[in-house]
Amino acid sequence: MAYEPRHMKWWGWGDEDTEFNAQAHPGFWPYARAVLGIERDDFSRREWKLEAVELPELCVDERFLHKLRSFLNPTQISDHRKERVIHAYGKGFRDLFRLRHGLASGAPDLVVYPESERDVCLTLRAAAERDVMVIPFGGGSNISGCLERMEARRLSVSLDMRRLRRVLAVDTASCTARTATGIFGPDLEQQLGTYGVTLGHFPDSFLHSTLGGWIATRSAGMQSDRYGKIEDMVVAVRMVTSEGVLATRTVPKSSNGIDVNHLCIGSEGTLGVITEATMRVHLRPALRLVRGYLFPEFEGGIQAMHECVRQECMPAMVRLNDPDKTALSLAFRPPASQLSKAMSSLFKGYLRMKGLVLPRACLMLTAFEGSEAEVARQLRQVQAIYRRYGAVNLGENSGKSFEATKYDFPHIRDFLLDRDVTTDVSETSTVWGNILPLYRDTMDLLRAAILESRVRPWAGSHISHTYQCGASVYFTFGFRQQREHEMEQYLRVKRAVQQSFIDHGATLSHHHAVGTEHLPWLAADISPLGVQAVAALKRGLDPGNIMNPGRLQPSSNPFETWM
Amino acid sequence: MAYEPRHMKWWGWGDEDTEFNAQAHPGFWPYARAVLGIERDDFSRREWKLEAVELPELCVDERFLHKLRSFLNPTQISDHRKERVIHAYGKGFRDLFRLRHGLASGAPDLVVYPESERDVCLTLRAAAERDVMVIPFGGGSNISGCLERMEARRLSVSLDMRRLRRVLAVDTASCTARTATGIFGPDLEQQLGTYGVTLGHFPDSFLHSTLGGWIATRSAGMQSDRYGKIEDMVVAVRMVTSEGVLATRTVPKSSNGIDVNHLCIGSEGTLGVITEATMRVHLRPALRLVRGYLFPEFEGGIQAMHECVRQECMPAMVRLNDPDKTALSLAFRPPASQLSKAMSSLFKGYLRMKGLVLPRACLMLTAFEGSEAEVARQLRQVQAIYRRYGAVNLGENSGKSFEATKYDFPHIRDFLLDRDVTTDVSETSTVWGNILPLYRDTMDLLRAAILESRVRPWAGSHISHTYQCGASVYFTFGFRQQREHEMEQYLRVKRAVQQSFIDHGATLSHHHAVGTEHLPWLAADISPLGVQAVAALKRGLDPGNIMNPGRLQPSSNPFETWM
Repeated sequence: MAYEPRHMKWWGWGDEDTEFNAQAHPGFWPYARAVLGIERDDFSRREWKLEAVELPELCVDERFLHKLRSFLNPTQISDHRKERVIHAYGKGFRDLFRLRHGLASGAPDLVVYPESERDVCLTLRAAAERDVMVIPFGGGSNISGCLERMEARRLSVSLDMRRLRRVLAVDTASCTARTATGIFGPDLEQQLGTYGVTLGHFPDSFLHSTLGGWIATRSAGMQSDRYGKIEDMVVAVRMVTSEGVLATRTVPKSSNGIDVNHLCIGSEGTLGVITEATMRVHLRPALRLVRGYLFPEFEGGIQAMHECVRQECMPAMVRLNDPDKTALSLAFRPPASQLSKAMSSLFKGYLRMKGLVLPRACLMLTAFEGSEAEVARQLRQVQAIYRRYGAVNLGENSGKSFEATKYDFPHIRDFLLDRDVTTDVSETSTVWGNILPLYRDTMDLLRAAILESRVRPWAGSHISHTYQCGASVYFTFGFRQQREHEMEQYLRVKRAVQQSFIDHGATLSHHHAVGTEHLPWLAADISPLGVQAVAALKRGLDPGNIMNPGRLQPSSNPFETWM
Repeated sequence: MAYEPRHMKWWGWGDEDTEFNAQAHPGFWPYARAVLGIERDDFSRREWKLEAVELPELCVDERFLHKLRSFLNPTQISDHRKERVIHAYGKGFRDLFRLRHGLASGAPDLVVYPESERDVCLTLRAAAERDVMVIPFGGGSNISGCLERMEARRLSVSLDMRRLRRVLAVDTASCTARTATGIFGPDLEQQLGTYGVTLGHFPDSFLHSTLGGWIATRSAGMQSDRYGKIEDMVVAVRMVTSEGVLATRTVPKSSNGIDVNHLCIGSEGTLGVITEATMRVHLRPALRLVRGYLFPEFEGGIQAMHECVRQECMPAMVRLNDPDKTALSLAFRPPASQLSKAMSSLFKGYLRMKGLVLPRACLMLTAFEGSEAEVARQLRQVQAIYRRYGAVNLGENSGKSFEATKYDFPHIRDFLLDRDVTTDVSETSTVWGNILPLYRDTMDLLRAAILESRVRPWAGSHISHTYQCGASVYFTFGFRQQREHEMEQYLRVKRAVQQSFIDHGATLSHHHAVGTEHLPWLAADISPLGVQAVAALKRGLDPGNIMNPGRLQPSSNPFETWM
């Protein structure tokens, strides 16, 4: 394989040679310092030393290795330090904090790069024979703790799928594409683009995540309002298990008993490895427009989103920031944006005239896609609704600056970690009528949980991914670290948010998976019998318990896996 | 409970006091006689004698009965002959033929009518203790053999859900309705109507089937193009199993591991009893229009349907008949329809002028729903597409006559059975590019299979339920019975059609479930490992194997269950 997508830097988000560009977002750090109460500004650039990372003692099984070598070439197997560290964790706060503190107890003993479905089959068979654990690995972008080993005793293999990256067949008449699942977002869109189609799946992690990862975690892209969540896009799958291959047919809909596609989707690597998927794709839209709007208040913005849904004129993307997230977005703006300094006081005057007060105002980003006529019609209908709720159109530039920087956001976590600030996110979904109560109570609980460690809380939220019956509610939070208690401090906050979701009848996550961090709430979410059902499937398809053991199966004290 | 929906007549479709009204469809019988080659017309009305039906020997378990009586009232338990016969089968050819010949080996020993979820829980618990089989029963309208017992040895209970028929809560803001699942179509729509909403699910069986039955079999309604299949409508479920209750949350979307809703949907009574469901509902459309169009040929009609999908202007319903099904529809027309005798020769002349030749022409029924403006816009766009493929608008009356008689069709089976004619249906779904090859080959195989018994074949087809990537293909067939070989004759034909579906990469059924009749193709459809996964679930949630044993689990010789 000539080209192989690079791994992200082991200590943070993105390629090794890219990082958060503070010059491109000059307002961000002053804003963050002010809201987080950070006085010092003498943070020096740190060098992360791979040698300093403590790895679990290498577990060696010569018979297993010998077996692997009988069907894999030497480039397909690695126990190098760097490989092990890269595959130890995803990219949540918990992951990065541990790695930066030299802790990598989640690291595998071996990394295996299959180059065919046969490689996957044989690896799983060998693993089953030798009681070896296998954890499938896509881009490594997960932030819920989906990738670390949950058992220390057995030899652990990280099965890195990136070499299985070919789009195998595209049916442009029926708009389906069959593809290997180790493919990354940009590569997938590039290959589909040669057929004039798109999957329409653009999660924030797009640059660094794979189709297989999206399917295994029930991911959502920014344009889910138009294209659906990943589970809505799957037509057929092939999943390799230690018992054989589960394969479904390329048919639009069926009544063939329990839909076994849905046993594979969201299985988080616990049943097998999804090697191939046939996905619904779409003709590339002729036009794509992103526009920003400012609403006088959050409530009105939510009502406007809901009204669009009721009128069945859902844009491809809507993302409504609450006032704090709006302030963050404005601080994040590039220097030359619509709201640049020169404009800013003039514009504030205009907004005041329109009755908008910035501390309460809420930014709504909206994307329109389709033919020119369709986009024009949607724009008209949506803007009419927005106007009724007092929105002001920020024009094209606000949309352009969103488009230009939409994949930069995850870099903030690293930048702030470098400055002893913890940030992370939690998101859920709920029905329309429950959005505001859930939002308000969760914000209160979130801030209170941060305040327990006597630091200034920052919390913001956005509503996105709208559905007929509700939407996703996404919380972003940050606070100064309390030295020696960083993890405890984080977990207290994370726990408060998640508990609030469950107490409000919402779900543990809308698109970030269960992983380790949400496992304590799984039984409350899908009921203990739901957990039992998943366990039954696991026993049936993975009798040796080699696939990602411990995951989706809360222990009697699920918080024990948190640290 | 004051009102209880009536059971259908045990020997056929519909209420005991209704039957196919030949006067209302004066052209039908002459057409059928001609195409089937029936010379005689002296069929006398038969009386079906309940006493003549041979029931399996009543299996009695006094301890079980005693237990049931401890929590059920006397009206909730029955072993009356009529109750047993009614609950023996669904309404497919195989079912009705056996009952009319006095065979009811599928009959349960007891019928139980739960009046609460608690009744269901306790019944299942009692059944598990006494190794009693339980087969959930909704309206009894299934035609794939979903309702007969597949084991003779154990005591069998038919759990008739019709008393659990209350809509429990409607959230008109989020458009969700929580309802008990024993509710019948008309009752559900009537209760939802008081809130101004509709489920939008109108299968051909609408009058005689229940929400629980729809969910357990992955049913599709005529308007699925707008409202989706039943699996797309389920937000949350409660399913009672012998191990406890599986319950999910009312959230629009989640990333909480494997979606356990989908373990319940399509489970065909093998895991538990779906007692409650929260469904997406919709504000009632202001306007509903049904129009008929005549296409010069089948191919063009399919292309027009596909074009509507590509332009994202999918009407609420499209149903394209092939030439033979078109002829049947025209023969089925009420006396006063658009195409009535007076008009007919004039209209034929007009069609000829337009280049349409009746033996090749295809009827397309199309329903539009929404606000007046929406309907007008859709009508314009759809008709522009139809015109490009040479369609002629048949005007309002053709749509009205479809609306007036849309639930009458299943009565034909009885009418023809009375005349020694076997009729039934098989349907599937496939991607757009595969529709014509599958259609043509299946038609050939179907006719050849009928001809093997040296009778004249009648076969027609319609395309409906369109999706971005394909559509459903529905076959209707009929032929004179070969005395003493009726079942063999039927099974030969059914087998040929189903085998053709699977050989062409399609699915065993689009919306009629696996049941007994499609079980031989389950492993080919969802792969042997898919079957193994379903078996694993079954072991986990129903360790005593009391729920609908044998179903969804093909034996080594699956055809043995056919007779």
